Amino acid sequence: MREAWVIGAASTRYGKLAESAREAATRVGLAALDDAGVEPRAVGHTFVANCFGLTERQGHLGPLVNQGLGIPEVPSVSVESACSSSSAALHEAYVHVAGGFADVALVVGAERLSHLDTLTATGYFAFAADSAFEARNGATFPGLYATLADAYRAAYRTTPEMFGSIAVKNHANAARNPHAHFQREISMATYLASPTVAAPLRLYDCCPFSDGAAAVVLAAREAVPRPAREPLVVRASVRSGAPTALQDRPDLLGIPSTRRAAETAFRRAHLEPRDIGFAEVHDCFTIAEVLALEDLGFFPRGTAARESLEGTTARDGRLPINPSGGLKAKGHPVSATGVGQVVEIFEQANGRATGREVPRTDYALAHNVGATGGSCSVHIFARR
Amino acid sequence: MREAWVIGAASTRYGKLAESAREAATRVGLAALDDAGVEPRAVGHTFVANCFGLTERQGHLGPLVNQGLGIPEVPSVSVESACSSSSAALHEAYVHVAGGFADVALVVGAERLSHLDTLTATGYFAFAADSAFEARNGATFPGLYATLADAYRAAYRTTPEMFGSIAVKNHANAARNPHAHFQREISMATYLASPTVAAPLRLYDCCPFSDGAAAVVLAAREAVPRPAREPLVVRASVRSGAPTALQDRPDLLGIPSTRRAAETAFRRAHLEPRDIGFAEVHDCFTIAEVLALEDLGFFPRGTAARESLEGTTARDGRLPINPSGGLKAKGHPVSATGVGQVVEIFEQANGRATGREVPRTDYALAHNVGATGGSCSVHIFARR
Repeated sequence: MREAWVIGAASTRYGKLAESAREAATRVGLAALDDAGVEPRAVGHTFVANCFGLTERQGHLGPLVNQGLGIPEVPSVSVESACSSSSAALHEAYVHVAGGFADVALVVGAERLSHLDTLTATGYFAFAADSAFEARNGATFPGLYATLADAYRAAYRTTPEMFGSIAVKNHANAARNPHAHFQREISMATYLASPTVAAPLRLYDCCPFSDGAAAVVLAAREAVPRPAREPLVVRASVRSGAPTALQDRPDLLGIPSTRRAAETAFRRAHLEPRDIGFAEVHDCFTIAEVLALEDLGFFPRGTAARESLEGTTARDGRLPINPSGGLKAKGHPVSATGVGQVVEIFEQANGRATGREVPRTDYALAHNVGATGGSCSVHIFARR
Repeated sequence: MREAWVIGAASTRYGKLAESAREAATRVGLAALDDAGVEPRAVGHTFVANCFGLTERQGHLGPLVNQGLGIPEVPSVSVESACSSSSAALHEAYVHVAGGFADVALVVGAERLSHLDTLTATGYFAFAADSAFEARNGATFPGLYATLADAYRAAYRTTPEMFGSIAVKNHANAARNPHAHFQREISMATYLASPTVAAPLRLYDCCPFSDGAAAVVLAAREAVPRPAREPLVVRASVRSGAPTALQDRPDLLGIPSTRRAAETAFRRAHLEPRDIGFAEVHDCFTIAEVLALEDLGFFPRGTAARESLEGTTARDGRLPINPSGGLKAKGHPVSATGVGQVVEIFEQANGRATGREVPRTDYALAHNVGATGGSCSVHIFARR
């Protein structure tokens, strides 16, 4: 097994793209290669994540991206795993690089949704849940995550301010991130006054629909003896699954795929949760950040929402979470989200996260969930 | 690099599924594992190919299939590469197994299109071409392959009977294949009398839209010391790309991605085209079979259509091509097609292709194209 490094990264600003997913994917792919100081012709394989291309009338995105990079002969594949599509693409790239099948791989995630109205987009999103048993009965993701939030609230007697503190923190971080969709802070009062979307979720518990694209370059250590940037060493790249429908889970107080992926990832990395300096976790709703922090092993069950209110996960806290702003405020361009988390970790490690720096970048974790946890990816990165 | 074996296979009949792609994928997945004599819990990763799930209101198919198999905790990923989606999924599975990341992997391709009318389906297919430069200007796949056929006809002065001989042969093979969509022979007179779809392509030059699902089980040799069936040893699993739009190709007398993938595959397998006993090639249109046979190195340029008319590629000819009936007559359930080709090779090797046996099953090749060749997969298999 070869050591794999992230050696370059790039992202669009999240929000509304004037270009197609194809164009954005090509643009960030070129930018990531440029950042890595790697010529496109050195790339052995590309991995493209894009969920809703059919709504843009364009599937089969890989060869088009490669053509834009000037390497049409290079194999490419599109990878889908709902909201964890690009972390799944990163995992495939990792397997190719670590297994010796490619020396350099490019991973691109791109999504454009702003051409759809919100109801249509919500409907498309729901196809990532168990359509037969959830979506057809009226469940959309705000409703499904509200069910999780309600179970948590009932079990642990949380207050709205605990969830609100996550929204306030992630907006504060996003305000310092030029890639972020929402570059403004919100107050607790604004959070508390925001309308209910699906009880107990308020508007500011929910991430936005975003357009966006992000890319990273992965390479075998021996292929890039002198990387242009401070590389991230991939210490673990792990995926796991769980029953897609909430009705098929033993309990609603955690995401079983996150727990399994995290256990395996820490074991493979020979690390423990307390070793991690900061993490980007999947906070499509504030309850998702709470569950992630407990499932990943950072906090005991039933305590993460309280820790958030106490500032433990703020940028200057003991364990900064989502310094990028997270899905909640940086935004959630579905297929770009997972690789976008790695862009943030790369920028922090390279001293490029100006104004939102975290103190410790020695070890970082990225956690990306598909749907309500039918799929999950956990990546652990280390500085050299 | 570990040796990887195909140790089990299963397929629905192609044509019209009464069930969803999810249900069909689960059913053939279970059947392939049963065929291999492998318990689902032995599977380390599943790979699912499905292009048009959004039209069935279901994406994120992997966890649903795994749940149906009773292994919801196992990671899964969906892979898309247009009409080569499931051979791309097989390649990912190969990389995982050969690289030591999984001992046993399940590859499933499934597609349901019969709920769409033909014009809508043709439109969705066209999204796999270069939408911006081809589909938006009115090009659909019959038109694009007609362009290739016209170039070939002009360069080599072929007769309609040469192309017709491919349709007649593939229908004759499909008539002996219980998995086939069209289980009846056609005559040359029927071919010649069939209406023009896109000149010079007649109706019987074109494959149908089919529903269907197919699955194979891939395993590391050391994981299955005593396989239940005669395994196929994967001697090469290679993918390549090319500019998606025909306008961006240097010439139209071949598919550059096929040529590159084939050259690499033969080199890795330490074999030459003349070693191959039979092949399943991508004949979405009769011209596609002609180009494939030349690009794969089986026949010199400009001769494959003539060889077909002379019977060289018939089941009792020197090099049987598409004994299954091919996309042309077995059918083309987009994301099931590539892995379905491997099902045929497995059945031939296991003496289960009753009534359509080919003489030599020592080495076989599977060739699967995405769109007009933006992507291509070539797999070479050997008996133990």
